[in-house]
Amino acid sequence: MMMWSGILGRGFAAGAALLGLGLLAGQAHAQDISEVQAPKTPLVLEQEGSFFVGGRAVHIAITGWDELGPDFSRMFGMPGETTVDQMYVQFQKPVGWQKHVPIVFLHGCCLSSKTWETTPDGRMGWYEYFTRKGFPTYLAEQSGRARSGFDPVGFDEVRAGQRPPDSQKKILIPTHEFAWSIFRFGPKYGEAWPDEQFPISQVDQLYKQMIPDMILTEVPSLGQEFASPTTNNPTVENMALLAKDLGGAILVGHSQSSGMPTQAVLKGMPGIRGIIQLETGCFANLTRPQIALLAKVPMLVVVGDHWSTPQPAADCQTELRQVNGAGGDMSFIALPKVGLHGNSHMFMQDKNNLQVADVIIAWIEEHVEHRAP
Amino acid sequence: MMMWSGILGRGFAAGAALLGLGLLAGQAHAQDISEVQAPKTPLVLEQEGSFFVGGRAVHIAITGWDELGPDFSRMFGMPGETTVDQMYVQFQKPVGWQKHVPIVFLHGCCLSSKTWETTPDGRMGWYEYFTRKGFPTYLAEQSGRARSGFDPVGFDEVRAGQRPPDSQKKILIPTHEFAWSIFRFGPKYGEAWPDEQFPISQVDQLYKQMIPDMILTEVPSLGQEFASPTTNNPTVENMALLAKDLGGAILVGHSQSSGMPTQAVLKGMPGIRGIIQLETGCFANLTRPQIALLAKVPMLVVVGDHWSTPQPAADCQTELRQVNGAGGDMSFIALPKVGLHGNSHMFMQDKNNLQVADVIIAWIEEHVEHRAP
Repeated sequence: MMMWSGILGRGFAAGAALLGLGLLAGQAHAQDISEVQAPKTPLVLEQEGSFFVGGRAVHIAITGWDELGPDFSRMFGMPGETTVDQMYVQFQKPVGWQKHVPIVFLHGCCLSSKTWETTPDGRMGWYEYFTRKGFPTYLAEQSGRARSGFDPVGFDEVRAGQRPPDSQKKILIPTHEFAWSIFRFGPKYGEAWPDEQFPISQVDQLYKQMIPDMILTEVPSLGQEFASPTTNNPTVENMALLAKDLGGAILVGHSQSSGMPTQAVLKGMPGIRGIIQLETGCFANLTRPQIALLAKVPMLVVVGDHWSTPQPAADCQTELRQVNGAGGDMSFIALPKVGLHGNSHMFMQDKNNLQVADVIIAWIEEHVEHRAP
Repeated sequence: MMMWSGILGRGFAAGAALLGLGLLAGQAHAQDISEVQAPKTPLVLEQEGSFFVGGRAVHIAITGWDELGPDFSRMFGMPGETTVDQMYVQFQKPVGWQKHVPIVFLHGCCLSSKTWETTPDGRMGWYEYFTRKGFPTYLAEQSGRARSGFDPVGFDEVRAGQRPPDSQKKILIPTHEFAWSIFRFGPKYGEAWPDEQFPISQVDQLYKQMIPDMILTEVPSLGQEFASPTTNNPTVENMALLAKDLGGAILVGHSQSSGMPTQAVLKGMPGIRGIIQLETGCFANLTRPQIALLAKVPMLVVVGDHWSTPQPAADCQTELRQVNGAGGDMSFIALPKVGLHGNSHMFMQDKNNLQVADVIIAWIEEHVEHRAP
């Protein structure tokens, strides 16, 4: 299992001292809107907007309208076509955006593009920060999640007795307990690390960002999907199409999606100017032609704190050696090694999230923008 | 049935001449991003961001992690809590926003807040337009849809054989055929009205906005939910809370959600400065105390073209008479009566969408902003 193994295997082996905060997640009371903080200077946008990439029509036998009364059944109850696998993208471009390479952020499991917006405690997220730093900034929502919709085929057929129940896609439900452990807020539920950077007092606001997931369970096993450099997940091709349509872009994945930019490059599609993997393992089983493809694109892996070691894990060491040995430019940054301590799996929302962004922007300037396309 | 009856009953009785375009929806090819048009002047924001309103924790017995391998099952497969019924809200406030009353837009069935953003053919949507006109502008995503997530309880239990299949919530699937008829693009699928204002050549981009809906089917019948001025739909209370938190706001509903601002007022909560119902019927069965509540809030109903008549329908005539008879300020605008012809159910995306917005803004200035709060 490429993607999550580090989080599972190493994060929880960390032996840091614990602080028993005794914080019960459900007690955290948020003021919601009143906590959202305004910046000191206006944000000047040349353009903002949203659009879709990809999508295909599928046939729907049971549309669900028949139980809403005879009028609805007669008008809309007939079989028809619906669109699935599309990818919703929102963007904003600051005045002067032409000086920077476009950057595309893709969220992880059980989350939406909200990941990159206002933090749970009301501070500026990376969407606005990268825009203010001059980047044309894009948020892609995984095909099958949130505004990208999901493939509903099968559910109503099971309900109607036309398919066996165990043929139904499983819905993955992210619990609060899940978040606390996989996002590395602390050693056990309700206990935070003493130096935790995540705004724990507002963790309830993060729980509201977590939504049911129908993507992860569509593949035979999580490990199989993520360990493989090739995949049929439609988001991967959609990201590559987006990079091409933008005339070149940096693709950023996080957690569950962190391997997708690499998988997009390995599809051989043009336009991917840089790969950034946040909180992830690496691909250790690449073929020679795959290594040659990756050697053409600058790559950065960033991990937070409370791993067992700030050194690259074995799979990352292998990929670093292979890609850089083939003339590539792959970097690995453990945040504690550059002086940032206590960062969680959700470091784009941590209290020092803008400092983490600055580390990434410095890498982009040096490795992507000061390099001929 | 308050909400949809007009669309169903009257829209299709219209006897306008037809233009046989012979357009097959699937043939419309979109350039997606390359069609998104940039405005001529920058957008200057004092603030942008997002947050949640509402939400509650529910217990989850089957989380879905157990099929992703023993590590996941051990770590995350235990029962736990997840958050449902929260409402995701995004916003932007232009410099000088203090001069206007905040406005909150709520999308309709099978759609998300994408409704109000860039149109299917790449023009400016109402989100940016109202911001540019000076309004602090909020997009609320219905609880149970898109970034607000949905209540997943029951699906995995059916799959595991722990609940009978027919106990499973029905998923409502919006087909292309459904959209063409209920959004009043033309008299039959593939045929547009001769004066149709919707950008039909890009209808495929609208189909990508349409996503499965788990909200409508959670109530015993559509008519019962919408005909009643009271409801337990969490979005209604969340909208009212938002208006209160904003220190006063205009609430706008569309289609399926058009009755929700009225339902929010009828909960007796403070802060709702105006009600705007887009493409809707009205409440004809109000009690005297309910009429008194509505008489305190300016109300506007707007309908497009290709209804059987530009006069208010019987239910709206009743509500207009009752509310205005009690000293209220309720208006009804059929767009053809103010010189705008050919508008669809999706007039916020029609080719003349900004002219329609201007009609609404003129009403706001006269009936809400020039009136003491």
